[in-house]
Amino acid sequence: MKAIIQPVKGTRDFYPEERGIHNWLYQAMRRASEAYGYQEYDGPFLEKLELYIAKSGEELVKENFVLEDRSGEKITLRPELTPTLARMIAQRQGELTMPVRWWSYGPFWRYERPQKGRSREFFQWNIDLIGVDAPEADAEIVAIGAHFFRSVGLTPKEISIRVNHRGLMDSQLLAMGIPAERKLGVFHLIDRRDKLSPAAWEAYAREEAGLSGDQLSALKGLLENRELWRQSPEMERFFKAVQALGVADYVVFDPQIIRGLDYYTGTVFEARDQDGEFRAIFGGGRYDKLVDDVGGDPVPAVGFAMGDMVITLVLQKYGHLPSLPVCPAQALVTVFDEGLLPASLEAAAALRQASLNVITYPEPARLNKQLKFADRMGIRVALLLGPDEVASGQVTLKDLAARTQVSVPRDQAASAIRQILAAPLPS
Amino acid sequence: MKAIIQPVKGTRDFYPEERGIHNWLYQAMRRASEAYGYQEYDGPFLEKLELYIAKSGEELVKENFVLEDRSGEKITLRPELTPTLARMIAQRQGELTMPVRWWSYGPFWRYERPQKGRSREFFQWNIDLIGVDAPEADAEIVAIGAHFFRSVGLTPKEISIRVNHRGLMDSQLLAMGIPAERKLGVFHLIDRRDKLSPAAWEAYAREEAGLSGDQLSALKGLLENRELWRQSPEMERFFKAVQALGVADYVVFDPQIIRGLDYYTGTVFEARDQDGEFRAIFGGGRYDKLVDDVGGDPVPAVGFAMGDMVITLVLQKYGHLPSLPVCPAQALVTVFDEGLLPASLEAAAALRQASLNVITYPEPARLNKQLKFADRMGIRVALLLGPDEVASGQVTLKDLAARTQVSVPRDQAASAIRQILAAPLPS
Repeated sequence: MKAIIQPVKGTRDFYPEERGIHNWLYQAMRRASEAYGYQEYDGPFLEKLELYIAKSGEELVKENFVLEDRSGEKITLRPELTPTLARMIAQRQGELTMPVRWWSYGPFWRYERPQKGRSREFFQWNIDLIGVDAPEADAEIVAIGAHFFRSVGLTPKEISIRVNHRGLMDSQLLAMGIPAERKLGVFHLIDRRDKLSPAAWEAYAREEAGLSGDQLSALKGLLENRELWRQSPEMERFFKAVQALGVADYVVFDPQIIRGLDYYTGTVFEARDQDGEFRAIFGGGRYDKLVDDVGGDPVPAVGFAMGDMVITLVLQKYGHLPSLPVCPAQALVTVFDEGLLPASLEAAAALRQASLNVITYPEPARLNKQLKFADRMGIRVALLLGPDEVASGQVTLKDLAARTQVSVPRDQAASAIRQILAAPLPS
Repeated sequence: MKAIIQPVKGTRDFYPEERGIHNWLYQAMRRASEAYGYQEYDGPFLEKLELYIAKSGEELVKENFVLEDRSGEKITLRPELTPTLARMIAQRQGELTMPVRWWSYGPFWRYERPQKGRSREFFQWNIDLIGVDAPEADAEIVAIGAHFFRSVGLTPKEISIRVNHRGLMDSQLLAMGIPAERKLGVFHLIDRRDKLSPAAWEAYAREEAGLSGDQLSALKGLLENRELWRQSPEMERFFKAVQALGVADYVVFDPQIIRGLDYYTGTVFEARDQDGEFRAIFGGGRYDKLVDDVGGDPVPAVGFAMGDMVITLVLQKYGHLPSLPVCPAQALVTVFDEGLLPASLEAAAALRQASLNVITYPEPARLNKQLKFADRMGIRVALLLGPDEVASGQVTLKDLAARTQVSVPRDQAASAIRQILAAPLPS
């Protein structure tokens, strides 16, 4: 036996079943984005490596898939969209009507260890509001996430969007006597709280982050304080807007949310399943320096990114993945014999003219074989066109679900098929 | 002034205007594919280089973007979909219900010289019917192309699908006394007829393809013979099916169509604009050996691929590109002042609940500025909510196109907006 050439590790094939789910997700993202008036856009999938170095520094591009352009320049498969977005905004600054509300869904690549919920080639929904520096803008972005969850059936009992504010944390750390130069180390520490055992975390706090015993217990108190947001005027306005937008049931304050180390400048948030089984479903926040970093003028921005893998696992876990029809055909036109093949092709063409999706069985075959094919493809209606039907100007329509059949004049076939499709499926 | 980081040569940014056209094209492809019952699928964008070497040989992977996996294996950005399709069929042979009717639309990469109608990163519609070895299957695939053209407004006066048959050409060349080992050279010659001057072509015929004077004039006669198809039983059946499928006006026989050199095994075809201004809009044909080549059992197949660049230029040339609304928002909810901001956010949330797409102006600003924003974004309706409206439980709706306004109770706002949107635009 010959060996079949294997796919690349960390990539996925989308057979029609998987592609159907993928499309369903994409359409839910579209509806949530468009409900808030966001325009779809996309960038190239290849970018210069320097675009990411400008944002993240040399260290953080280690996960990129890198190749050399024939001119010798290093290019890369995009690992995320925000630097491309910043470039596109910078390129047309002054031309674009601000604020910009844009969303996108497309492929990304990172050289990660393939595991449950991670692949090297994945898709991401990105949505950003650019040009407004206000907590209400942050609330709008978070509300879109909640709108999406609600639309796919995920309830606040299953997932929550956990929010914090970098400025609030800055002032709290300062008040605890932690000097500015040790702030990033403490952010890193907070970020690891759920990833380390309590003992390992406390050791890390003393040894790596350099906290005193007093500071450590103050920090632990801080991280438990669910009312801390009331000390931030921005967070007060944020939660008021979240309330007005009707999504307060999905949004909670969580002082443990930090999101990476040097990218975000204000509000930060993550969506998590309530059991904490998965890593973040989406993550985002306010980043006001990025357009600046890629060569444009500074502009305030807030947004999030959601990968397709974790959300699919979460939807699966809570039983919200739909069962979708895999084949778009609504009817199969059967073929009686070679002589009547053109008549079947014509009948199918007439149904398509009437906007029905129709498959013609590709060659003469036993009727049973043709009906079995329709059944396996989930096609409900079969149109039969034999010599009797041709002689009488009629067609026979079989409802394969209800196991009934009717004969109708040929020019009424389309409306009769629609009637069958509209009838409830027998239970 | 700082320099903005540039995009990679041969890639494209899709700002919302371009993305809108892109989506419109994708939806037209979806409609045509689904009208014939085809299921959407996709493969990975990264594949092993050996997959293409198996199909095309070392020589023809020169255009691939190649990178090295961390294991040292050569992987590549896919330059076309058919080898991936063959791999996916081979992987599930025996499980899949045959025949398989699949379509896809996604990105591809080739290291070509960027020019009008070509980029290094492009999109392609692929559609294939696998498991049927019959001229009617070839006709179905060609009919889908014609169905697509008709649906986007391209008429048979503007474009045609030109068809030939490799087997027919084989027997004709044999009858002209051209030995089998020189066949590929003559196919190459035929393929170049429109690309060389008549004199250069004849020189090529004698010197490279090794034709005698008699053979050359026989070949020229052959290439002018529009009735040649009648000598092929397969072409007879093909054209009969094309007729029955209602697309005969788009399809012509053209003995000059050859399509590449060693890939296709039967029917071959190309769509061309009638002026011959552009290269092929799509190209395809029957290929019965590919699944075999990647390690599966042999299976008959027919399909085509259409890039997004040439079709867009052709649609533009003939004036068929639509003018699309760029912003999905149907209404703008204005903000009177900071105190009334929550009321505006609530009003917007209520409209979204009623399935309208709504933007809230992100901060208090002069009303004129807010209305100007709506106008620039092409949003037809503005909802005004000031202290008077709040006191009376009403909202004011402005039709920015008709320059009229009405006041309605708050709970009737959604239906009143729908009424405005349904009214014809003033001319």
